[in-house]
Amino acid sequence: MAAKQETVSIEKYMLALGAQAKQAARVMSMATTEQKNNALETLASLLLEQQENLMRVNQLDLQAGKERGLENAMLDRLELTPQRIQAMADGLRQIATLEDLIGDIDHVTTRPSGIKVGQMRVPLGVIGIIYESRPNVTADAAGLCLKSGNAVILRGGSEAINSNKAIGDCIQQALAKAGLPKTAVQVIEVTDRAAVSELLRMDQYVSVIIPRGGKSLIERVSKEATIPVIKHLDGNCHVFIDGQADEAKAIAIAVNAKTQRYGVCNAMETLLVHIDVAAKILPALQKEYAKHDVELRGCDRTRKILSNVTAAKEEDWSAEYLAPILAIKVVDSIDDAIDHIEKYGSHHTDTIVTENDAHAQRFLREVDSSSVMLNASTRFADGFEYGLGAEIGISTDKLHARGPVGLEGLTTQKYIVFGTGNIRE
Amino acid sequence: MAAKQETVSIEKYMLALGAQAKQAARVMSMATTEQKNNALETLASLLLEQQENLMRVNQLDLQAGKERGLENAMLDRLELTPQRIQAMADGLRQIATLEDLIGDIDHVTTRPSGIKVGQMRVPLGVIGIIYESRPNVTADAAGLCLKSGNAVILRGGSEAINSNKAIGDCIQQALAKAGLPKTAVQVIEVTDRAAVSELLRMDQYVSVIIPRGGKSLIERVSKEATIPVIKHLDGNCHVFIDGQADEAKAIAIAVNAKTQRYGVCNAMETLLVHIDVAAKILPALQKEYAKHDVELRGCDRTRKILSNVTAAKEEDWSAEYLAPILAIKVVDSIDDAIDHIEKYGSHHTDTIVTENDAHAQRFLREVDSSSVMLNASTRFADGFEYGLGAEIGISTDKLHARGPVGLEGLTTQKYIVFGTGNIRE
Repeated sequence: MAAKQETVSIEKYMLALGAQAKQAARVMSMATTEQKNNALETLASLLLEQQENLMRVNQLDLQAGKERGLENAMLDRLELTPQRIQAMADGLRQIATLEDLIGDIDHVTTRPSGIKVGQMRVPLGVIGIIYESRPNVTADAAGLCLKSGNAVILRGGSEAINSNKAIGDCIQQALAKAGLPKTAVQVIEVTDRAAVSELLRMDQYVSVIIPRGGKSLIERVSKEATIPVIKHLDGNCHVFIDGQADEAKAIAIAVNAKTQRYGVCNAMETLLVHIDVAAKILPALQKEYAKHDVELRGCDRTRKILSNVTAAKEEDWSAEYLAPILAIKVVDSIDDAIDHIEKYGSHHTDTIVTENDAHAQRFLREVDSSSVMLNASTRFADGFEYGLGAEIGISTDKLHARGPVGLEGLTTQKYIVFGTGNIRE
Repeated sequence: MAAKQETVSIEKYMLALGAQAKQAARVMSMATTEQKNNALETLASLLLEQQENLMRVNQLDLQAGKERGLENAMLDRLELTPQRIQAMADGLRQIATLEDLIGDIDHVTTRPSGIKVGQMRVPLGVIGIIYESRPNVTADAAGLCLKSGNAVILRGGSEAINSNKAIGDCIQQALAKAGLPKTAVQVIEVTDRAAVSELLRMDQYVSVIIPRGGKSLIERVSKEATIPVIKHLDGNCHVFIDGQADEAKAIAIAVNAKTQRYGVCNAMETLLVHIDVAAKILPALQKEYAKHDVELRGCDRTRKILSNVTAAKEEDWSAEYLAPILAIKVVDSIDDAIDHIEKYGSHHTDTIVTENDAHAQRFLREVDSSSVMLNASTRFADGFEYGLGAEIGISTDKLHARGPVGLEGLTTQKYIVFGTGNIRE
């Protein structure tokens, strides 16, 4: 009986959050830029003022996490430090400086019938965000949703519940001070997984779900949701060193794409090298990778050129290592490189290094990934580097938002028509 | 055993279509504008040349339909006439004149890191279209998908199977003559419903599903699909005659929006009238509607002003009549009008008739519909009227494509980055 009662109460609790969010979304869609920026600035100040309190509450989560035997990496991500609180505040202040797109009218044309047609940029409505242990996502995601005129329901990891609630309280205070509805940002305060299941099915209230986390979270969300999902699955990124690559650029890019950071979705996981340059470039690269302790796994031809390289297995070509491991394959042509990327890639980010214009054009046009690059490191695939100001994630979907998703990805356009009494003949 | 064998063979058949479509999509994404336009022009000529044959084959469907007892309205939609074949050919030639967006690069900026970032317009890949009895959709939909560089799998109604196969043959001939893969357009040749279920789950091959038809079809597709769906649900459109409306415009628009055509999603279904003008405008409107035999169903206040009006029930406010019936409600303010539209509307198309700028701005901004209009008939909500050249449907979704969906809605943008050896610091 107890279990059943709890399920009912979670359903009611979630439906209430949804209804409140939908009401708040209507107000948020009409909020002025000044109100929204005030809320962001106030929140930044509040987080800094509340630093001691936030860290004290965060200790409860850390203590509980230690007792539950969480790994050190997880505990590290969970921890709020003065630097991390400062970074949250800085992020919010940066969002305040970004242009407010809401209400912009584009593409206005006058039609033969006499009507004027344009498109107005408007918020999506209510956004549901599901994320894992880092509590700073609570402030970042709320900031982006707030600036884009949306309401948001936030579901963080259960291990960060006390931290997320405390940050959520600060957000609601800041909203109220700016004259905006507190319920524009709501943190789900129950840790039961049933709350997520409810959220994923509240079509009547929620416009879109954005999961941020590991592959299993995102797969579960995609499978269960009856609401559209903006998702980011694997980043199995490639660098292809063409037969007409500049050697220095090729080495710099291949080293940077693999070693600048390992645990990120835009790190290179497979290196493709044209047969014409493999014998020259691979030994030079091996020396560089050795400095970073990167383990190399190669195809047969790679292993004829380099010693001390493990044989790559079929599954290596699909792997997202997120670690100092690199798969290497020697290919005969740009066609083979594109075919390999099409077969094994995850459509995230792929780069060609070449000085040949025709090859560059073919690669940019034919590779079907959210970012395709010429002579640049895959590590640039990121909202800040692209000038979006901030990002809520990197979408590997094709519809609505593809690649880094900033404020614009959290909006939609509606058609607006100006007439003077026009009727259709 | 027989049933089980058939299920297996449908699965295999559909997977083969999917794999062929995906291969063809890669070729189509690289096709030149000339090749695509050649295929469209050739197809237009072929349909006209094959007119006698198409009508003969269509007779098989009509005969079978009569034997199955299809309604006359359904048989009418199923019929191919010389005029309708001419209209298909004209439509294809018009699509050939539309600008080819594929490969366009927009929004190029140079970032502080030195990389140049832009967005390239590319096809979605493989599109699945599920539609009902009108066989002309086979040519229209194929034409739009072809011009936007996609491959398409078409599933028409079982009652039109012979007509659709014959049109499909013409399409494949035209593709081959233009040097494009025949499998870029495939008509599903089995009428078993299991084929639709397979199509809706072929994530590995199909990027998006577009259902065209009645509400039950679209609801079934949305529920079953594991692939994103661009859907068009109800059109419960409103005209709001504000207290400061111009009377002549109000009457012209309210009559046109209801009576210019009944069975269409952008026809008005509920008229909202401000109390200040109701006593003057409603009697004039009643006379006009009487000429068109439109049945009126009103709220209590409407019925105090007009005699011979049925009492509207709660379900009338949500009804998509698609018929000469109109629900009428008298409201006290623009707020009440917007609240009513938010509560009962389907977010398709809503119009305000007013001379008051502030009211116009509020309505345009606050009404959350795919098209929001000022002093214009809801009947203008259509791809041709908006200048999209053609449309594959009208989306009531918020993500990706909202409102009339033309060629651009069948494409996506990928980020492209031009570097000169740039690495991330």
